[in-house]
Amino acid sequence: MSTNLTIVSSNRSFGGWHKRYRHTSLALGCDMVFAIYLPPQAESGTKVPALYWLSGLTCTDENFMQKAGALRLAAELGMAIVCPDTSPRGEQVPGDPDGAWDFGHGAGFYVDATQEPWSRHYRMHDYVTRELPELIEATFPVSAKRAISGHSMGGHGAIVCALRNPGLYVSVSAFSPISNPMNCPWGQKALSRLLGADRATWKDWDATALMQTTKTRLPLLVDQGDADSFLAEQLKPEDLVQAAKAADYPLALRLQPGYDHSYYFVASFMEDHLRHAAAAF
Amino acid sequence: MSTNLTIVSSNRSFGGWHKRYRHTSLALGCDMVFAIYLPPQAESGTKVPALYWLSGLTCTDENFMQKAGALRLAAELGMAIVCPDTSPRGEQVPGDPDGAWDFGHGAGFYVDATQEPWSRHYRMHDYVTRELPELIEATFPVSAKRAISGHSMGGHGAIVCALRNPGLYVSVSAFSPISNPMNCPWGQKALSRLLGADRATWKDWDATALMQTTKTRLPLLVDQGDADSFLAEQLKPEDLVQAAKAADYPLALRLQPGYDHSYYFVASFMEDHLRHAAAAF
Repeated sequence: MSTNLTIVSSNRSFGGWHKRYRHTSLALGCDMVFAIYLPPQAESGTKVPALYWLSGLTCTDENFMQKAGALRLAAELGMAIVCPDTSPRGEQVPGDPDGAWDFGHGAGFYVDATQEPWSRHYRMHDYVTRELPELIEATFPVSAKRAISGHSMGGHGAIVCALRNPGLYVSVSAFSPISNPMNCPWGQKALSRLLGADRATWKDWDATALMQTTKTRLPLLVDQGDADSFLAEQLKPEDLVQAAKAADYPLALRLQPGYDHSYYFVASFMEDHLRHAAAAF
Repeated sequence: MSTNLTIVSSNRSFGGWHKRYRHTSLALGCDMVFAIYLPPQAESGTKVPALYWLSGLTCTDENFMQKAGALRLAAELGMAIVCPDTSPRGEQVPGDPDGAWDFGHGAGFYVDATQEPWSRHYRMHDYVTRELPELIEATFPVSAKRAISGHSMGGHGAIVCALRNPGLYVSVSAFSPISNPMNCPWGQKALSRLLGADRATWKDWDATALMQTTKTRLPLLVDQGDADSFLAEQLKPEDLVQAAKAADYPLALRLQPGYDHSYYFVASFMEDHLRHAAAAF
């Protein structure tokens, strides 16, 4: 169980509270900061459902909370939002040997690493699917009705979390996910380090591959900008579409004309994703 | 007239466009970056009204555009939003001699300086009320129906711009304004440098003082969090309330319980300020 929960900051917003906390994660072997938005409906102690949001490369808990424009509707719909960080952090946690931004600190890829030196700390899947919800649901008036969503690396993370854990979430969606990490430079760099050279082990952490084997049929909403500079080389939504067709998986992928990879895009379609989650709650 | 207009970046958002531009400002004697949001209604070339937003200490054009959650409703209401920077910038522009964050770069206080070495560049009032609207209205499908609003130092700037220039704006509002800069440390530091030791000259740049002499009666909406850590020492909304009463000025100041000075507060009440502007358009 996580320990040493301490509050970092607190801001009233849309009648609820945005709060940041630090705690010691046993899953990750380091201190972590996360943010939670508690809507006005939680003030009475009534348990509210929660959307877990996984952010992309280089982000922390702050990007989504500040830029997505999601709190207004979360307050209206009565849902909490939980934003973890994107990797283990701290001096004791190894980062990218070359200091790159696409692996290591801020780039944990939401997998459970099996290879040294990564396997000690890089266990973001265990953190996001087990330790963090346990902490949230034991600490705040938040129910076990969970939705998951994310952006880019976090879109990959959200889909993989849902496909690997039938029953854990009632809703899943993604913005601009890294749809087939086995088949793109960002994913190959991360998975070869975290999981080793045997590509057979990568399939358990790849949305496109998991679609062939998953037991869940949670409807998946994906928004993708067609002016996204990472679209062709890194994101490859067409691989996910093909896998969904082959597996008869309920995927609604919307290609949004003129939109890029930024939060100006994410904010534009956030309402649809929050309503997608709320409908499942 | 401003010259050398070049585009810095462009993001599709809520069916319109968020764009950043660099240009050479003659008013300020330096290059400046500003942001504009053009709503979908502007795509046909139809002129749309514009809200000019003045940001607070340390900000650039980016804080509001990323954090205020304003673009959704601007798209719905069909208004442009224009965000200038908060001071002149560049190596040739003198900053705070002590490197402080409350004067100089990022802290121009929206006045026209009269004292050396500030008077060459620190002419933000002229820039915001004259040069920038001229450039915007000559370049984009934006009409001369102007609203002005801002936060903290920018709330002070917005009120001063409206009170000094009857007829220039059809709407004015502010979040957490520095209401009486003559009477608080931030304001006294800035005004004594930019305008010199003679406090009589400060009255032309102080919202509370201007309320006694202004010819405009534009209804002023102000939101202020009561948990704002700058409230008592720097913001002093009670001075503005008293001046409005004495001058019979139409001020609606709302003290919002539990809210602080952050954009989590600003975003929470942004809709009311955009509708306040839209009603005047």
